[in-house]
Formats: sequence, C-alpha cells, structure tokens
Amino acid sequence: MSTTSASIERLAIDTIRTLSMDAVEAAKSGHPGTPMALAPVAYLLYQDILRYDPSRPDWPNRDRFVLSCGHASMLLYSVLHLAGVRQLGPDGQPTGELAVPLEHIRQFRQLHSRCPGHPEYRHTAGVEVTTGPLGQGVATSVGMAIAARWLAARYNRPDFPLFDYKVYVLCSDGDLMEGVSGEAASLAGHLRLSNLCWIYDDNGITIEGHTDLAFSEDVAARFRAYGWNVLRVEDVNDLAALRQAIAAASLGERPTLIVVRSVIAWGAPNKQNTHDAHGAPLGEEEVRLTKRAYGWPEDARFAVPPEVVEHFRQGIGTRGPALRERWETMLAAYAGRYPQEAKELGGIAAGKLPPDWDAEIPTFPADAKGLASRASSGKVLQAVAKRIPWLLGGSADLAPSNNTLLQFEGAGHFGPQTPAGRNFHFGIREHAMGAAANGLALSGLRPYVGTFFVFSDYMRPAMRLAALMELPILYIFTHDSIGVGEDGPTHQPVEHLAALRAIPNLVVIRPADANETVEAYRAALGLTDRPVALVLTRQNLPTLDRSVYASAEGLRQGAYILREAEGGKPDVILIGTGSEVHVCLAARELLAKDGLAARVVSMPSWELFDMQPQDYREAVLPPRVDRRVAVEAGIDQGWHRYIGPRGAFVGMTGFGASAPAGVLMKHFGLTAENVAAQARRILAAD
Amino acid sequence: MSTTSASIERLAIDTIRTLSMDAVEAAKSGHPGTPMALAPVAYLLYQDILRYDPSRPDWPNRDRFVLSCGHASMLLYSVLHLAGVRQLGPDGQPTGELAVPLEHIRQFRQLHSRCPGHPEYRHTAGVEVTTGPLGQGVATSVGMAIAARWLAARYNRPDFPLFDYKVYVLCSDGDLMEGVSGEAASLAGHLRLSNLCWIYDDNGITIEGHTDLAFSEDVAARFRAYGWNVLRVEDVNDLAALRQAIAAASLGERPTLIVVRSVIAWGAPNKQNTHDAHGAPLGEEEVRLTKRAYGWPEDARFAVPPEVVEHFRQGIGTRGPALRERWETMLAAYAGRYPQEAKELGGIAAGKLPPDWDAEIPTFPADAKGLASRASSGKVLQAVAKRIPWLLGGSADLAPSNNTLLQFEGAGHFGPQTPAGRNFHFGIREHAMGAAANGLALSGLRPYVGTFFVFSDYMRPAMRLAALMELPILYIFTHDSIGVGEDGPTHQPVEHLAALRAIPNLVVIRPADANETVEAYRAALGLTDRPVALVLTRQNLPTLDRSVYASAEGLRQGAYILREAEGGKPDVILIGTGSEVHVCLAARELLAKDGLAARVVSMPSWELFDMQPQDYREAVLPPRVDRRVAVEAGIDQGWHRYIGPRGAFVGMTGFGASAPAGVLMKHFGLTAENVAAQARRILAAD
Repeated sequence: MSTTSASIERLAIDTIRTLSMDAVEAAKSGHPGTPMALAPVAYLLYQDILRYDPSRPDWPNRDRFVLSCGHASMLLYSVLHLAGVRQLGPDGQPTGELAVPLEHIRQFRQLHSRCPGHPEYRHTAGVEVTTGPLGQGVATSVGMAIAARWLAARYNRPDFPLFDYKVYVLCSDGDLMEGVSGEAASLAGHLRLSNLCWIYDDNGITIEGHTDLAFSEDVAARFRAYGWNVLRVEDVNDLAALRQAIAAASLGERPTLIVVRSVIAWGAPNKQNTHDAHGAPLGEEEVRLTKRAYGWPEDARFAVPPEVVEHFRQGIGTRGPALRERWETMLAAYAGRYPQEAKELGGIAAGKLPPDWDAEIPTFPADAKGLASRASSGKVLQAVAKRIPWLLGGSADLAPSNNTLLQFEGAGHFGPQTPAGRNFHFGIREHAMGAAANGLALSGLRPYVGTFFVFSDYMRPAMRLAALMELPILYIFTHDSIGVGEDGPTHQPVEHLAALRAIPNLVVIRPADANETVEAYRAALGLTDRPVALVLTRQNLPTLDRSVYASAEGLRQGAYILREAEGGKPDVILIGTGSEVHVCLAARELLAKDGLAARVVSMPSWELFDMQPQDYREAVLPPRVDRRVAVEAGIDQGWHRYIGPRGAFVGMTGFGASAPAGVLMKHFGLTAENVAAQARRILAAD
Repeated sequence: MSTTSASIERLAIDTIRTLSMDAVEAAKSGHPGTPMALAPVAYLLYQDILRYDPSRPDWPNRDRFVLSCGHASMLLYSVLHLAGVRQLGPDGQPTGELAVPLEHIRQFRQLHSRCPGHPEYRHTAGVEVTTGPLGQGVATSVGMAIAARWLAARYNRPDFPLFDYKVYVLCSDGDLMEGVSGEAASLAGHLRLSNLCWIYDDNGITIEGHTDLAFSEDVAARFRAYGWNVLRVEDVNDLAALRQAIAAASLGERPTLIVVRSVIAWGAPNKQNTHDAHGAPLGEEEVRLTKRAYGWPEDARFAVPPEVVEHFRQGIGTRGPALRERWETMLAAYAGRYPQEAKELGGIAAGKLPPDWDAEIPTFPADAKGLASRASSGKVLQAVAKRIPWLLGGSADLAPSNNTLLQFEGAGHFGPQTPAGRNFHFGIREHAMGAAANGLALSGLRPYVGTFFVFSDYMRPAMRLAALMELPILYIFTHDSIGVGEDGPTHQPVEHLAALRAIPNLVVIRPADANETVEAYRAALGLTDRPVALVLTRQNLPTLDRSVYASAEGLRQGAYILREAEGGKPDVILIGTGSEVHVCLAARELLAKDGLAARVVSMPSWELFDMQPQDYREAVLPPRVDRRVAVEAGIDQGWHRYIGPRGAFVGMTGFGASAPAGVLMKHFGLTAENVAAQARRILAAD
C-alpha cells in the first residue's frame, strides 16, 4: 500500500470503505453499502471542510456534522477513528483516549462497544446526535443551525465572531421521505438558515428495491419551493465537484441542499447498486472481490495504512487545533471585555443555570376561582425566562392557547432578520418542533416547546430521542384532558399520560394548582439530564390555601400528603393528579360527613415519586392503608401499582366527547360524589 | 329575504355562513371564520359537483368530501343540513331522519348533539372521516382515492363503470404544514391519483397570526414537485372560477391542488382577515354587523330561508338520487353477469369476510428451532389474503423485514399503471401509511400495514383516529423488543407495548409462537369494529408442541393456561407474552427442580383477556395464587394489575443497547434463571 501524495486521498477514502465493510462483516450485521458509497463525503468534510478540533469535540464553535442516515454508522466511526477524535469523560471533559479505537470498530454492534449499531450521543464523542429513526437527524440539524444563529446574535461582538459555525448533514432518501424532514426544511427555508447544508445521498435504492417504487417526486424542486438553494454533484467520487458545491453552499442566504449521486456499495462487483447491499454484510467473497477492485490487499482486515493516519494528522489534526486555539484566545479577550456574557457562555457550556434563576418566580395567593395551570405556567415561564437568558422556545402555532409567549421587554421573535429573538414560531409542525428542540438542547440552550397535550403524539419520535439522549427539554402541554370540553375526542387526551409515562427517562408532571405549577418549573429546570413534560389544564383550577393544605413544595417528591385524614388515621387514601386533586379534596369532605377519614395525596409526578426512598413513599402511601382511590381524567394504565388490588380508579375508560367541560366531568363520573361512592364501595368490600 | 333566481346562490351561501356563526355563538366556542370564508366551496361542491345522494350517504360510488380542517365543522354541518343528508342507523342502514336536524345545529358542541366540535365518523352520516388533528384528513383522502382506483380496477367491467368516484378535500394552512400531508402528497403524486382534488384555503391566517410568521414556502411549487397539477382561484367568492378549476381538476392524469384565496370571517367588518376570527365566537355585536353586511336580517338566529332548502332539493336532492338509481340499475345488471364479483362487493359493503376465509391457514408442527413470529405472520398473511380479495396493504419500505409482501400469483403491486395490485409500497412514510390505511378501511377494504414496532410512534396520530373511528385495520409490527439486537436502542421498542395498550379500542396481540400467530390472525380479522396491532419478533421462537401444551386457540381469550403446574396446584404463576413465554416455560422447569410448582400463562392480549367473563379470568389467574411473575421484554407499566402487590416483573427498566439479541436478553435479565430467581424471591417473602 505505498502511496504517492496524489493517491493518498483515494487511500484514505478506501480505508473508510474497507473499515466499514470489515466491521459489518465481523458483526455479521449492519449496513455496508452507504458507507462505501459516501466515504468521499465523510473524508472531504473531516479532512478539508469542518472547523473541528479532534482533540476537543466539545469546542462550542465547532462545525457540526450530523449523520442523519444513522444506519451508515460505520461511515462516522471510521472517520472519527481516522481523524483521531478524542473521547469525553463522564464529566464531559476531554480525555486523551481515542473516541473510536480500532478495537471498538472490531467490536462494532457488540455490548459496550463505542460503535453501536446506530450512533449514540453521549456514548461516543464526535457523535453530535443519536440518529437511526429516519428524518430525525435532518430535523434536529435545523435546531442546531438555529442555535448557531442565536448564539451569534446574542454573544458575538464587533471583532469577536465567537459563533460562526455551520451544520452539515448527510441524509438519505428515507430521511427526505419522512414528513418530519419536510416540516423542518420548510421551517429552515423560512428562517433562511444559510449555515445549514444537507448533503442528500441520491442513490436510488431503498430496502424494498429502487426508489422508483414509491418515490418519484422532484426533490430538488421541492426544496427550492421551501426556499432552499439546491446544488448537484453528479458523482460522489468527484472530490473537486463536491468541494466546489460545499464551498458554494456557504455563500448564499439560504440553506443548501446538495444532491449527490452515489452508487450504493460502490465497488462491490456483484452487489453495488442493489438493495442487497443496504442492510446486510456483503459476504466474505464479495468483500474480497471489492477489495480487489479497490486495489486493496484482499486478506487484510481492519487495515489502516499509517500514511492515512498521518494524512489526517496533517490535515484536520493540525488545522483543527489551530482554529480552536485562535478561538480560545479570542474568548479570553472577550471575557475581559464582556465578563457578563462570558459568564453566561460558561453556564451554557456547563449546562448550569444562572444563580438565582428562580428569584422572580411568583407565589400565588389562595383563590377559590383560581386560574388554569396553563395560565400559571405562562406566568412562571415569564419569570424564569427573564433570569435564564438562554431559555427560549415556542409553540406549534398555539402560543396564545399554550401561554408560551415570552412577553417581557427584549424577548423578541426569532426570525431571519431578528436572530436574537427568543420566541419561536414553529408553525403547525409539532414533529419538527420536537426535533428542533433536540437540536437546541444539543447546543447547550434550554428549549421549551408547547402544543396541545393530545398532539404530543405528533412529536413522540423526537421526544423518545430526547429521552434517550438525556436532553433537558421542557414540553409545555396544555389542554390536558376532557377538560378541553367542546373540541371533543380528537382534542381530548385520554391515554397520553400513560403514553408519556411509558417513555423511559422522561419526567411527567401534572400540577394541581398554580403553586404546584411553580414547583413543577423548579423541579423541571433543575433536571439537566432528562426531558420533562408539564401537563396543564385549559380550565381554571382553584389556587389552594397552603395555610390549610400542605406546602406545594411537596411536588418535589412527586407525591405528598396534601391534606391528612381527620384524626390522622386514614380509612382511605384519595390520590389525585392535576385538576382531579380538587375532586379528591371535595370527596374528602363528603366522606367526612359519613365519618370516614380520607387522606388526600396530590401525586403530580410518578417519576419523581418513584425516585424517593422507600420510607418516604411508605409514609405517603402506607402499606397498611390498602383502600385507595386514584382519580385522574385519563385511563387507569399503571395506576394499579399505587392503588393495589383493593383500590379503585376513577377516570376514563375510552374516548371523550364534545360538550362543555363541566358537563363532561359529570358525564364521565369525575365528580366528588362518584369518588366518595367508590371510596365507600371499597371500604365496604372485605 | 325574497330572492331572484340570480341571487339564490348567494342566499344559500350566506345561509351556511350565518348558521355557522349562530351555532358558534350559541355554543360560546368554535371556529366561525373558516366556514364563513369557505361557504362558497361547500355550497358549490354539494349543490353542483358531488355525485352524492343525500338520502343514501352510504352509496358506495358516491364522491367523497373530506373536511380536513375539521375545526370548520359548522361548514360541513350547515351544508349537510341544507342538502338534506339522512342519518344512518346503528346497523349502517339509512333512516329517513335528517343527519343534521336544525335542533342539533342549535346544540352545536353539546353532549349527544350530532354536531360535535369536530366532525366524527359514525356519529353523523355524511361525515366521511373524523378530522380535527391537522394533516389527517388530507392524508386519509389519499387512501380513499387509492381505494377508488383499486375498486375500479378490480370490479369495473366493460359497460359497467361501477366505481368512478372522486375524492374532494378542503384543507388549511395547518394541514399543509404538517409533515404527514407532505408524505401523503408525495405518495399521491407518485401514484398519479387523478381522482383526488385538494382545495387549499390559502387565507394567510393561523392562530398565532399571519402565516408569514412561520410559513413562507411556495406551496404551489412544492406540489408541482410532488407531481401534482396545481390550479389557482383568486377569490373564493368567484363561483365561476371555482367551478372551472374543479372541472379542470378532473381532466388531468395527476392529483390536483386548487389554491383558493379566501378571507377568514369574510364579511365581518371588524374581524375579517384576523386571527381573532379563527377559534372564538365573533361576539353578538359583530354577528349583527356581519349579518347587516350580508343583507341578512340582523336579529334572525339559525335562519334557513325556505327557498334555499328548495334550491338544494332541486339541485343535489334531485341530481343525487337520479345518479344513484342509475347506478343501482347498473349494479343489478352487473350482479346477473358477474355474480362472484357482486358477492364480493356485498361483503365489502357489509364489512363481512368471505366464508371460509381462514380455510388455508396453516397449522405449524412443533419445532424446537421454530421460526420468528414475523415469519409465521408472513405465511398466515398469504393464506388469508388468498381468500380475502380485498385484504391489501404493504409496508413503509420494510416489506422484506416485516414479511408483508403478498407473493402468490396475481397479488400484484399497486401502481399508476397497475391499480389492481394488492401490494403497496408506501415508501419511508409511516405516518401517511397509517392515514392511508384509514382511508382504505373507510372505503370498506381490509388494509394491513407494516413497519418496525418502534416506528409505530411515527404513525400514532393516525392509529388513534383508527381506534376512534372503529376501523378494522391490521398493523403488522415486527422487531418487537431488544430481540432486535444489534440495531440498538433507537430500534428497540421498550415502551411501545404500554403505549399502544393505552389507546382505547385498539387491540394489541403479541403471539408466542407460530400457532399463536395463526390464532392472532383469526382473532384480528374477526374483529370488524376496531384496529388490531400484531407485535412480532425478528428472532426465531420455538413452535410449541401443542400435544404437550394447551392449544393455541386459548389466544382467543387473550390469556390462557399454557402449561399447568405440576400436580395442578400452582405455587406461582409465570405470565409471559410473545418471546418471553418460552423463558417462562424454561423457568418452570428450573423451579420444578426445586419442587416449586409453576403455572405458565401465555397472555398475548390484555384487551382480549379483559373482555372475558370474570370466572374465566379468575380461572386463569386465581386470586388465591398471588405470587405471580410477569415476563415481558418491555417496561412494567400496567402489569401490576395482573401481578398484584406480591408479584414481580421481569422486563426492561430503560432503553436497550446494541448487541446480539442473546447477549442482550442475558444482559437485561430476560432469562429463565432470573425469572426462577424472582419467583423464588416472592415465594420466600411473607
């Protein structure tokens, strides 16, 4: 494998290809075809284009690379290995160790390898975002590009261009068929995100066969309609053309789509350009033939020619650190000149909120009429957003209903001409909004996004990735039950509490009144390693008199004794969440008239409660009090864990209906009378 | 309100407008602006365009009208009232009664009214599909247009054009911003569905304000890129231009988008063209001023001029029945000539499967190696599809993995040139696939759709509507757990069983072996009023020896005693689903070695089990045997209902990982040893 300087590029590219083939072969599973096809793109980006320091994959102003076609993970692992990207420790600090050592490539798709089947954020440094579910990477990249714009607008100063990074994405037919990518592209075009470049692998092949089976639209024309700049490269192996297109992408005022023609499994004599090469190893013989076609030693496995390593070292390995060091120097000077801004940037980088971020949070006085938790949420949101400059977000066209608009002076609206604005208008595009939130959080910002609770279904795939990536995103879901009223069953969540509680690592909080909403914000923003969903009412809720009832601080434990039973010895425990806590309190009074002592537990968050020590949990729900009624305007799924076999559940058993909220609550039995009746029934049972 | 014949159209249109305004005003909630704007379209479609018989809203060859912007429900209710559409009875047969009597309009958005907040299929005749969640109506219409094509290709004969209906859709900015509509439009363009016409209300207003806030793409250019014909009407009040555009839409070989400029709340002097008029009543004074602007009696409420009723009677009320009667005559002649085809059409209309539809379903011999349930599913699917000609479907580009391809002779592939094909290639568009399935089922066909189980998240909003509409759709979800193996956590469902079980009216079945898969198909296809999700493995499962174990027919009850405890007196019950049933059987043997008697219950479907009488349920899970271990490679949510407080759960507590399936099962404790250990632990507890 001796080389001239003219052939080193080809050698580097073939190293990416053969590492990918060998890893898939060793794993006996994986996707060899796309890495083989796109190796020139990965090579070019890392070696020549990305402003990226392999020794500091956490550099805030690095260019981002997103492999949206996550199944082509070996493409990324190969180039991360060759570029010498270093691992970050559990503390987020760089270690000297390679992020992707060759041993881990050999262990592709094995337990504990840094080369899992699809790239996983946090697991492998250099992976900017977990990808695999198609469409998510591209859609997330829009959030990343927005973040770059916002950071620049807020923190750059004359002579201090601290943030000018770009976001490059590799994506596939599948990415562009998924609706979420269309939503995201429309948004990116609207926002004129010229710092965003999607490179589309137009290989004409999907799992079922040729894309002509299902996909015959004119993708380039579609993207022009979104307001994108569209370029073409006829052959992915033409590095000069690729380089030219990527350079041109940087010049315009719009996001760019580069349509690159490629041949899946390029070079495999029998499998190239077939869907056989998409998702299965090539097979030993075909690997051999392919290596022969590349002029590669046929029997070599995981071969990395030293001159390729040296080539990368002289390229990105030299270029990258120099860029970063200049930036660090600039940052140091900036910190002297703009200490407050530098402090904020420190907080963003460390994932820490400013001190006293909660100093302006109001306390709500007792009020029988009260206010909707969406309204108290709106007030608390203003208070915290004032103190956390990088808390930003918006709604999928429901800001007036979700109460998500930041209304204080200077909050502003994010737009192409106003990139420092903190209010986002995502349009009626919940899924792209969810993915964009992931991109914002991956950039260190604290995003919140709002929609009606029932439409959490539309953004669920993005929420799952947020949970998997441990991103601190705040979901503000309003209109949380049949309390929606007249809009009817299409707009009334029934199963959504269960559906969201099911997602691992997502915390769901359904506050009972304005002061629980306050505490919900405190809890939510204090969590930095998981997303939180706030589930809020459309309808008014009384603000409880906390001199009578226990402090709303109990929310922090997920569930707490809101009102002890008369005499301190409960016959029965009534457990409510959100709007149904008030139903429980009223039922307690009805039972008292019968001489029955009921404890009322407010249980805004299962997840927070389950984190508590056993003695706390048993103090709230003592095993000896096994007559328990849970009340929630949703289905019972999961509640038996808390109510046990002698318990009862008052809630929904099916879809709602269209009628005023009060009528529905009565119709479906979400009344104090019914709760009291159920309590009496289980107390009477043996 | 005396009229000349020249002004009757305007009078009819203003009747729609004022009914809508009055209904929203009376309900004190709703969306007046869009019905006021689009009244001319609704008028024109029903009066002049739709081949529709108001007395028979179930006529199979009727043109379909879909109000995708379901919040504008009063537009539809008004015109259904004026057109005199008759209600269908619970048996699906027409009654003489008006579907939308004026009293129900007066009761708009009240309990039991046929005019709920959003149009609900089955609830109000003339409502072709439940709409409200944006994007769903348009996407569903693609399935309806496909069904029209398919029915025509399969059943039309020379001189018998039984099926030639068209699908008209009214949609809003929100519909076209949602990703699902982009997926669906791309598919419709690919399939050249020239029988589909979307009329896009380009009013420039959304809830947050002007669409320019978030939506500046060139919608017309985007649709041309999808392969659509795009027309424009500059003023929705120009009936001649509207008529011309709709006529032109019928001529091409592509689906048509008609972009219609409208003014929200047209005629309201202070609120027209503002987002204030979108989702709230106009207010008494503005209603008065608007009526004055229309030349309407200002104080009239719910006024329906008799000449308008007469006008509709002379129009659609005369035209429609004549069209239908001619069709019935044709059908009678057709039945004489093509009795087999006519019989099939009878089955489709009645929602009944052919007799002996399950005659070719195989029985699988015991086999320790066995096969994946996705593979047995594939075999059973062939067998039933052969016998049910209108069972059709496909996958979101995963047919080879989902085993969903119909491979027998004549199955064919649905495409623009092959509209009788039964294999669909939906592309990587799960959400549009789910919505298209709704459209197919609404047309009487029995659709199945497949993807990886984890990607059920992508189609969840469409699945929810299927459940709400009680549509018999078969979801074939494969790769159902960490058994997916190397693809890792992005592709491993963990929470999805819980998430789907949460949806009311959806039946989830996770069979344990090939013969349970057989029974799952029998149960699923036998259900005609709800969707069913089959949850299937990627990995092989032993085919149980049913001479040793209980018959797989037990699946019909949702759960059954697969293997009784030694001696018939269980110390503990092991409950498994799907692949984990085999783990339970092995654990039973381990426990037997310790002298512990374990019953193994296979529980493929909670929903089917919960439908059984209490005595059956208690026979399977006797209250006295309170030591129970449930084993499922998912989270525990909802299981406590079956295992009780003394039970244990063996499953997942978080996301999976990338490694071979066997390694993962061991890593996460899904082993017979662990199950036995948990059983011993709870038996030892007091």
